[in-house]
Amino acid sequence: MKDVAARAGVGLKTVSRVVNAEPGVTPDTERRVQEAIESLGFRRNDSARVLRKGRTASIGLVLEDLADPFYGPLSRAVEEVARAHGALLINGSSAEDPGREQELVLALCARRVDGLIVIPAGDDHRYLEPEIKAGVATVFVDRPAGRIEADAVLSDSFGGARSGAAHLIAHGHRRIAFIGDQPRIHTAAERLRGYRAAMADAGLAIDDSWVSLGSTAPERVRDAVAAMLAAPEPVTAILAGNNRVTVTVVRHLAACERPVALVGFDDIELADLLGITVIAQDAAALGRTAAERLFRRLDGVSEAPRQVTLDTALIPRGSGEIPPAG
Amino acid sequence: MKDVAARAGVGLKTVSRVVNAEPGVTPDTERRVQEAIESLGFRRNDSARVLRKGRTASIGLVLEDLADPFYGPLSRAVEEVARAHGALLINGSSAEDPGREQELVLALCARRVDGLIVIPAGDDHRYLEPEIKAGVATVFVDRPAGRIEADAVLSDSFGGARSGAAHLIAHGHRRIAFIGDQPRIHTAAERLRGYRAAMADAGLAIDDSWVSLGSTAPERVRDAVAAMLAAPEPVTAILAGNNRVTVTVVRHLAACERPVALVGFDDIELADLLGITVIAQDAAALGRTAAERLFRRLDGVSEAPRQVTLDTALIPRGSGEIPPAG
Repeated sequence: MKDVAARAGVGLKTVSRVVNAEPGVTPDTERRVQEAIESLGFRRNDSARVLRKGRTASIGLVLEDLADPFYGPLSRAVEEVARAHGALLINGSSAEDPGREQELVLALCARRVDGLIVIPAGDDHRYLEPEIKAGVATVFVDRPAGRIEADAVLSDSFGGARSGAAHLIAHGHRRIAFIGDQPRIHTAAERLRGYRAAMADAGLAIDDSWVSLGSTAPERVRDAVAAMLAAPEPVTAILAGNNRVTVTVVRHLAACERPVALVGFDDIELADLLGITVIAQDAAALGRTAAERLFRRLDGVSEAPRQVTLDTALIPRGSGEIPPAG
Repeated sequence: MKDVAARAGVGLKTVSRVVNAEPGVTPDTERRVQEAIESLGFRRNDSARVLRKGRTASIGLVLEDLADPFYGPLSRAVEEVARAHGALLINGSSAEDPGREQELVLALCARRVDGLIVIPAGDDHRYLEPEIKAGVATVFVDRPAGRIEADAVLSDSFGGARSGAAHLIAHGHRRIAFIGDQPRIHTAAERLRGYRAAMADAGLAIDDSWVSLGSTAPERVRDAVAAMLAAPEPVTAILAGNNRVTVTVVRHLAACERPVALVGFDDIELADLLGITVIAQDAAALGRTAAERLFRRLDGVSEAPRQVTLDTALIPRGSGEIPPAG
């Protein structure tokens, strides 16, 4: 800024006024300052690329489902960071379909987004290599990239699920179910692994009928719970793999005579009033951390891709502390 | 398509293959078909503007808060319609700040979106007139435009709130509170008007202390409820003006000894299990109707702007059927 002021023959305060579009500068002075800025290649902090390109920057955010409440705080956090950098947010969802993810990502690249934040549906992102080489900064969030090296910001799904299952074991449960999302989804696989680890730690064998993986559609989850509870030796506790599963399990257990313990992965609005014990992720922190990482990349920070894992927190509220029935 | 086929000297099937990027066409034939398409200005149905411009279409969606669960199904519905028309969704939120709304809308226009869907924070949209004249189709949703003629898709806030208050009156309540959002917000004002109409219909006077309008921040709402319930002649029922208000009121009433009836505007996930009576809007239908209207405009349908109002539905679940205490 000093160089700009010297070249334009004005004070620092005047340069600041022009840069921040504040009043009190004559058109002639403003022109001189702008010329000095251009000739010196001056940039205002983070907005480097925006100013360099002379158009509004934008970043693409590819979610799994815009309507899933988990992505609300995550999206808002990404938007806040983007806004602080003067960038717009282009949003879309994959509906958990790898083909649709790829189509959307490439459409965003064709629309020349400056960067991408992706919650991947697929497990092979080599299709992104040409774009990344061409300079599209990319950060994966919630789930890592597949078959390419890329930044990723994740929650500790393994550790969270392990602590949830250990919590149920500590309350006396031995027959514990895990109901999760499709196993090809990284978080679903990690949470299953956490559940298995806690059971192994306690020396408990897992019956195949206690594990149910698949769509989180209410009908699928409801049928899985019903089948488990109708078994001759039914499970006495359930670890629900994500917020969509938890909501359906809670509805089913509310209509159930026998008390069944429940720990859900992801916090849910009003779960406090319903007494649902959860393993909470910080969705806003996931979004914020990923967006900050993306803008550091856009500012030209060049370092090897790395994976950041955020902690989860077990919040006991009653449902996870119910003792085993009968 | 016939004209294209004739000009390129190929069959209809070949034109279809080229347009839909299917295999089985030699590069030379493909080039001839493309040239014929260009010279004739051929367009594929809805994607008219996309093909005409030779780039991916995009529409801007300006919400109030990306993290508010009410906007989840609305956004997803808009995305589904946009996707069916081959368009991307650019999303942003105003945080209920008219200045930020204007800034975001103009940034989207500068980024050359084809159309806009706006949930307005402000009440003067004359700033949009040059953009609309320049051809940016605009549909307002949830709240109407201010001081310009524009398409709008709304819920029946007045009728919904009136039926909610009438429901409480029918269950014996006379001292009924209304806790709502800032009165400059159209939906908040309409819901207040509906509450006043129902009270007037029943010949009930409203004490000023029963009406509280302002931010939906939990602290503000909690203080309002606490003050109302601490009055010498406290209200026996509450009509909550939106989902953010309802969540806080439910939390407060859960810790309250005296039973207080509650009807909330907007349905909430798990409200069924908590027995919360609500006036439900169809958020997905709002988004879908607005997006379909927008794409009809983009397809060149030219007719006077109009306002569409969608019905609400009162869903009794217990909290609205509690009789007056004492």
